[in-house]
Amino acid sequence: MWGGRFAAGPSDVMRAINASIPFDKALWRQDIDGSLAHVAMLGAQGIIPAADAEAITQGLKQIAAEYAANGVAEDWALEDIHMHVEARLSELIGPAAGRLHTARSRNDQVATDFRLWVRDACDAVDAALKALQTALVDRAEQNADAIMPGFTHLQIAQPVTLGHHLLAYYEMFARDRDRFASARKRMNQCPLGSAALAGTGFPIDRDATAAALGFERPTANSLDAVSDRDFALDYLNAAAQCALHLSRLAEEFIIWASQPYGFVKLPDSFSTGSSIMPQKRNPDAAELVRGHAGRIIGCQTALMITMKGLPLAYSKDMQDDKPPVFECEGLLMLSLAAMTGMVAETGFDTSAMRKATERGFATATDLADWLVRQAGIPFREAHHITGAVVKLAEGRGVALDALTLDELQAIDPRISQAVYPALSVDASVASRNSYGGTAPDQVRHQAARARAALAGE
Amino acid sequence: MWGGRFAAGPSDVMRAINASIPFDKALWRQDIDGSLAHVAMLGAQGIIPAADAEAITQGLKQIAAEYAANGVAEDWALEDIHMHVEARLSELIGPAAGRLHTARSRNDQVATDFRLWVRDACDAVDAALKALQTALVDRAEQNADAIMPGFTHLQIAQPVTLGHHLLAYYEMFARDRDRFASARKRMNQCPLGSAALAGTGFPIDRDATAAALGFERPTANSLDAVSDRDFALDYLNAAAQCALHLSRLAEEFIIWASQPYGFVKLPDSFSTGSSIMPQKRNPDAAELVRGHAGRIIGCQTALMITMKGLPLAYSKDMQDDKPPVFECEGLLMLSLAAMTGMVAETGFDTSAMRKATERGFATATDLADWLVRQAGIPFREAHHITGAVVKLAEGRGVALDALTLDELQAIDPRISQAVYPALSVDASVASRNSYGGTAPDQVRHQAARARAALAGE
Amino acid sequence: MWGGRFAAGPSDVMRAINASIPFDKALWRQDIDGSLAHVAMLGAQGIIPAADAEAITQGLKQIAAEYAANGVAEDWALEDIHMHVEARLSELIGPAAGRLHTARSRNDQVATDFRLWVRDACDAVDAALKALQTALVDRAEQNADAIMPGFTHLQIAQPVTLGHHLLAYYEMFARDRDRFASARKRMNQCPLGSAALAGTGFPIDRDATAAALGFERPTANSLDAVSDRDFALDYLNAAAQCALHLSRLAEEFIIWASQPYGFVKLPDSFSTGSSIMPQKRNPDAAELVRGHAGRIIGCQTALMITMKGLPLAYSKDMQDDKPPVFECEGLLMLSLAAMTGMVAETGFDTSAMRKATERGFATATDLADWLVRQAGIPFREAHHITGAVVKLAEGRGVALDALTLDELQAIDPRISQAVYPALSVDASVASRNSYGGTAPDQVRHQAARARAALAGE
Amino acid sequence: MWGGRFAAGPSDVMRAINASIPFDKALWRQDIDGSLAHVAMLGAQGIIPAADAEAITQGLKQIAAEYAANGVAEDWALEDIHMHVEARLSELIGPAAGRLHTARSRNDQVATDFRLWVRDACDAVDAALKALQTALVDRAEQNADAIMPGFTHLQIAQPVTLGHHLLAYYEMFARDRDRFASARKRMNQCPLGSAALAGTGFPIDRDATAAALGFERPTANSLDAVSDRDFALDYLNAAAQCALHLSRLAEEFIIWASQPYGFVKLPDSFSTGSSIMPQKRNPDAAELVRGHAGRIIGCQTALMITMKGLPLAYSKDMQDDKPPVFECEGLLMLSLAAMTGMVAETGFDTSAMRKATERGFATATDLADWLVRQAGIPFREAHHITGAVVKLAEGRGVALDALTLDELQAIDPRISQAVYPALSVDASVASRNSYGGTAPDQVRHQAARARAALAGE
Repeated sequence: MWGGRFAAGPSDVMRAINASIPFDKALWRQDIDGSLAHVAMLGAQGIIPAADAEAITQGLKQIAAEYAANGVAEDWALEDIHMHVEARLSELIGPAAGRLHTARSRNDQVATDFRLWVRDACDAVDAALKALQTALVDRAEQNADAIMPGFTHLQIAQPVTLGHHLLAYYEMFARDRDRFASARKRMNQCPLGSAALAGTGFPIDRDATAAALGFERPTANSLDAVSDRDFALDYLNAAAQCALHLSRLAEEFIIWASQPYGFVKLPDSFSTGSSIMPQKRNPDAAELVRGHAGRIIGCQTALMITMKGLPLAYSKDMQDDKPPVFECEGLLMLSLAAMTGMVAETGFDTSAMRKATERGFATATDLADWLVRQAGIPFREAHHITGAVVKLAEGRGVALDALTLDELQAIDPRISQAVYPALSVDASVASRNSYGGTAPDQVRHQAARARAALAGE
Repeated sequence: MWGGRFAAGPSDVMRAINASIPFDKALWRQDIDGSLAHVAMLGAQGIIPAADAEAITQGLKQIAAEYAANGVAEDWALEDIHMHVEARLSELIGPAAGRLHTARSRNDQVATDFRLWVRDACDAVDAALKALQTALVDRAEQNADAIMPGFTHLQIAQPVTLGHHLLAYYEMFARDRDRFASARKRMNQCPLGSAALAGTGFPIDRDATAAALGFERPTANSLDAVSDRDFALDYLNAAAQCALHLSRLAEEFIIWASQPYGFVKLPDSFSTGSSIMPQKRNPDAAELVRGHAGRIIGCQTALMITMKGLPLAYSKDMQDDKPPVFECEGLLMLSLAAMTGMVAETGFDTSAMRKATERGFATATDLADWLVRQAGIPFREAHHITGAVVKLAEGRGVALDALTLDELQAIDPRISQAVYPALSVDASVASRNSYGGTAPDQVRHQAARARAALAGE
Repeated sequence: MWGGRFAAGPSDVMRAINASIPFDKALWRQDIDGSLAHVAMLGAQGIIPAADAEAITQGLKQIAAEYAANGVAEDWALEDIHMHVEARLSELIGPAAGRLHTARSRNDQVATDFRLWVRDACDAVDAALKALQTALVDRAEQNADAIMPGFTHLQIAQPVTLGHHLLAYYEMFARDRDRFASARKRMNQCPLGSAALAGTGFPIDRDATAAALGFERPTANSLDAVSDRDFALDYLNAAAQCALHLSRLAEEFIIWASQPYGFVKLPDSFSTGSSIMPQKRNPDAAELVRGHAGRIIGCQTALMITMKGLPLAYSKDMQDDKPPVFECEGLLMLSLAAMTGMVAETGFDTSAMRKATERGFATATDLADWLVRQAGIPFREAHHITGAVVKLAEGRGVALDALTLDELQAIDPRISQAVYPALSVDASVASRNSYGGTAPDQVRHQAARARAALAGE
Repeated sequence: MWGGRFAAGPSDVMRAINASIPFDKALWRQDIDGSLAHVAMLGAQGIIPAADAEAITQGLKQIAAEYAANGVAEDWALEDIHMHVEARLSELIGPAAGRLHTARSRNDQVATDFRLWVRDACDAVDAALKALQTALVDRAEQNADAIMPGFTHLQIAQPVTLGHHLLAYYEMFARDRDRFASARKRMNQCPLGSAALAGTGFPIDRDATAAALGFERPTANSLDAVSDRDFALDYLNAAAQCALHLSRLAEEFIIWASQPYGFVKLPDSFSTGSSIMPQKRNPDAAELVRGHAGRIIGCQTALMITMKGLPLAYSKDMQDDKPPVFECEGLLMLSLAAMTGMVAETGFDTSAMRKATERGFATATDLADWLVRQAGIPFREAHHITGAVVKLAEGRGVALDALTLDELQAIDPRISQAVYPALSVDASVASRNSYGGTAPDQVRHQAARARAALAGE
């Protein structure tokens, strides 16, 4: 295919390092879709005879049917998916197949194919994220009143509600969806017609091919169009941030499932046992989700590095764009599915959560706030008084509201009997009713808002 | 400040590892702005006495004036910028200063401060990118007709125009601006009022503080608001992609400045000499821009890793969010300024560029296209014929249009005298007039479109 | 300093991006040491007059004394530490100063300086690691018998001893020391005399300068010597792996300090409180150590990326070698010091650890092993029987040894009264006496071996 | 296999995320080798009956023969290679197969298997590096006298010899081999017998299994042994540095093959053409080697991140250790093979290299050195004079030695006729005869030393 200028063929090593068919066969649908749009335009513009355009179109459709039925049989002599399709087209329709490549090049062809693939991946991940959000909202509504410890530094800080905690992740995944949506919009320009790097002299209609393939418009600079992999990086960056969010939730499930916590019982369907320790119920799925975040960031790093410092236009280094994206997509989609299942099916032991909250002096801030509001004490001083109260309770091994009024007043005489209601975990969460706060009413309000947003799409 | 519960102070090592004032003093303006908005709201809501609110406001303004005049003097005993401001406020206005921290926590305070800083950074980088785009469009218009080799694989591929090449970067930086704009919009929600993690029981008005600080709205979930560093990652991700684009242009300047190319003469103002080799004119600025891309990706990687697997809500690991962002911002802004200077001031040797184009068989594709269009030969066959022509010219060491018609017809008799015009580099670029192609008319059209876009903002 | 060929000076932006003095002033000792070795050799070889050599030597010693006393005053017009030293030398001794740079270049000079600095950093980190290992062995010996849950998947798996757990980290840090030692040995070749890139025609004695600076030998290829930053990458790679180990121990301290675990009480000297929650004792130091691992990996990634694809010999990108190394060194040394303090001073609640072990069915494997050994049952079947026993105990909420013999025999009649001793946590750990196992005897053996290794160095 | 405690099986998603057989089947040889060593020891120690040990041994050997002949047929219900082997063993020898897993666990089994695999990979890469070094030395000897430009900042700096340039890479790959050797030595301890995490109560002989598998000794701490992936990270770190070296040589081949340079003609066996531009000879193999460096660093980053912050002992995240290592190994071995082929077969156009050297004022340093040595001028002043000479020659477009003596003396009267020999490129390289310098004699000396080192291994 390289013309008559090469005396010797590639070495075996060259064939091995150069062949992209083992991974780029994943692009076969996009490759055929792109060719169908191109050949229709070539025919409509009169650049190739109408009969040839029709033959090519029928041939491509047959190849698509073959691949859909049987997959793509790899032949390393035909190094990439594009040559596989072309070779089969030649078999099917003869020399007219040679006209398909008029007014395009591998460079704009592969840029178009890959962009179509990544655009599809954006759509798929959006649907998966929506399903995960829905599971989170379902469980949040069920647990809008359930008390659990809110942690900072993994230290019990203040009581929160489980519903509130779950909705925090709803927010993260909403930002992820927005990121994928931005990426999709930014990439939705069609490189086809940029040819090798400089555009073409054939009277092509780029608006037509762009429209046929669902793009908003053709790209504006041919050199950029064949050199650009921003769309792949945008996908990887959004995926990496999404994986970070998943890793945080996974970490929490792992900690919550640990016996000293005992906050959750992971479903059998997302746990495994041990080959040697029969008592184990391992949170494998959560651990794999957390581990996959490392690999996904590795994919992102890989393509960043590969693209760094490449002069225009296309360089073969850019063939290394696809494996990281394909790997990332597989890891991310599986992680999302596993997390959705875990969120939906995990058993929350809200009784254990409440008990842990009560043991953790979680209402200390409420005491300090009471001192500010009821006793008019500046916050910094109230904080100091509360510290002394906690120290006493900790030393005695009791909860704050198990201290007697005498004990409290020995620390500061401005404390009165009226303080006790402020020290209950239910009162604490109910009081935090500022917008976005943990009070059950707020949780229900935000859950309703989330559900409306999910429905309205 | 941690209440009465600690018996011993921190060790020296702890003080050293814990102190953030060496870097977070960069947040002083944002910290004071956030506090001003908070105290105004506390006063308006009657949460603290109006007189105290006024005293705090005046005190904060005085501190801002002091810092603006003299900088922030670091005191490691006051570990962060927040304590520096508070301590100074106490000195200035006495115990009323203690009321400022009512209904907020360090967690929402620092989330707000840092978000404000990053939002400012987005605005600054947008302006810098616009300046760079403007320089590119200026030089592109001047060189809309200048012929240079278009490369793929760093092999001469087809003739392009220098203006077209420069506008490819205009497109990249346009996407960068869009990315920063998306990031800015996504982050523009106010965490203030989320308190430590759970919201607050004080009757705060989060809409008021959000509006006062220029945010679109308050964040919807307090746990998320204090745990989230997506806004910093969004900035870093956009910065890393921008740095990649800069690294590509830097690589090109470095190669173009190399003597065998000799396409550019870098300005004295962005070159250096050698301490030992007096003939050197080193493209140091371009190399540093390229090198900085590595460090910027390192910053991105760092924060990704730090955030991975952190349980909600705030963990102290998140104090490591700022150094990578601050370092990245410095490196990126300097890179943009240096690149803008280089683009504006570099001398392009368009004569050397044209000569290199003519020596590189760059019009081989034009010959193949001529065979398709004028002689009705399928592209694959035309490609093969052209390969044979190139092989002949290469062997003889001459340009394609220096071959005689006899020689050409010996390869394929369908070639006629009419082919010669197609083989000139000027004809080649003029012919690639498809949308986004390299033809001078296209370049002028896209430059005008770019200039309008820059003006319209 | 670049000779007479430049018409205009650098722009302000260029000055800012080009100046390395803000960070490379850290190299001042190494720079002066390298120059002292060089000038002594120049004098000894008769390359420069003895009197000049002596004047330069005295001048350099005076500069060293000045810097040691007052630090290095930055002057951006003298862009790096090398020019600072040279300029001051000229002030002190006049034109003879110009002879110092004979037969060397910035490229070999900076390669030598930085290598010396990194070699010193290897020595410093080795000492810090040894201190941490010593603290681990001390605490391991104290806790050789203390029972704690051994976790896999953060699920209680089998009883282990705290001493055994701590010695696992001894092993990790031993590997780290070996890595730094390998790195040190590999880098211990002297680049000085490689000049700009090609060596020099002056009759220098590279063996002499190498020996004077403590190197094993001179580097063997001048192009490699000035282009190589493997020594910096070796340091960063070893540091990153060390940081990973630290992050794992930090994670454990954070989890162990969390109230549901309550395995440790972190010392006041390495904890902090909260500005709003007076009951908090936050494991800030551990969290910062964990967070720093992210930044350290970021430093490693940064220099990897910067070096990728650089043609020989020196490129200015390589000026970006120092900031990541310097940042990494600071973060790592602080992390090691903090971790050493935490290990030495943390209070272990071994009673809480034992209780958690007993609640966790940790001896299930011991039951399975008993079935294999005492009842001759194949392991896979024994595992299945034990699973049923655990399910029963879990359902009833009791420990394994609280089940009656009747209950056990209802599951499998081959279980006898003799099984009960195998179900105690003490018997369990004592039984795991294979080499490297958790039995207290093994722990004491390994601790003694470790102590001998630490003493023998 | 998880005992009788799970009510429901894994979901489809769980099965998909959990299955490691698609990649860990690569470990089949190591898994069977490890089991053979384990069962021999169990038999010898009398832990299992001799007849069972013999049956297991024969069964394992049969499985190895089957896999060698037919590969491993994946069955996702048997999630990993270990279960595949066990299940087949049960089919072959019945219940006795269940005794194989006595006194070991998946955790020490997989740690052993993977360590064996990585150790093999170290041996394989060492052989590949040696082949590449040999090719470099061969070509260096052939080109010990060939003049080429030595570049810094990609600017022509001083003349060097091609042999010297190639030997710079010999040095880099020597360091790489040393790194892999260090890694191999450090990892060469046997985890087998560490069991799940705590060791075992069976009277195993860990020295025996370690010796049988070629390890230096058993690991010293069971918790560390099953939690440690340093050996994989050591491999990845060494691979990443090796990939960086390859990327630098690849970059040079790409630049040298670019027409304005024309220093090399890449062999047909490692080049490709273009589907649209018939004149192209693309350095695809070099570009893929350069691109692979990005992916290899991505693999390194991935495992670093995955391991960060994991508590002891085994976590399922660690299943993500293998894909990055396997991917890295494939990319690296292919890159080494391709680079070895390119080094061996590339045609160097030494005439073009010499011409470029002569055009580049490469002997300016020689002029400066002459002024120092023959005219006794301090170096800094000589540098300045030379700058003026270069400026004159550059302005006139001639080489340094094409300036007349009058012209030179007009710049500085101390210049005499005797300067001219110093200005030839041959004299320049011959003069740089310091140890490790570029003089042909030095190159031949270093090549001989390299060849002796390669032969002596």
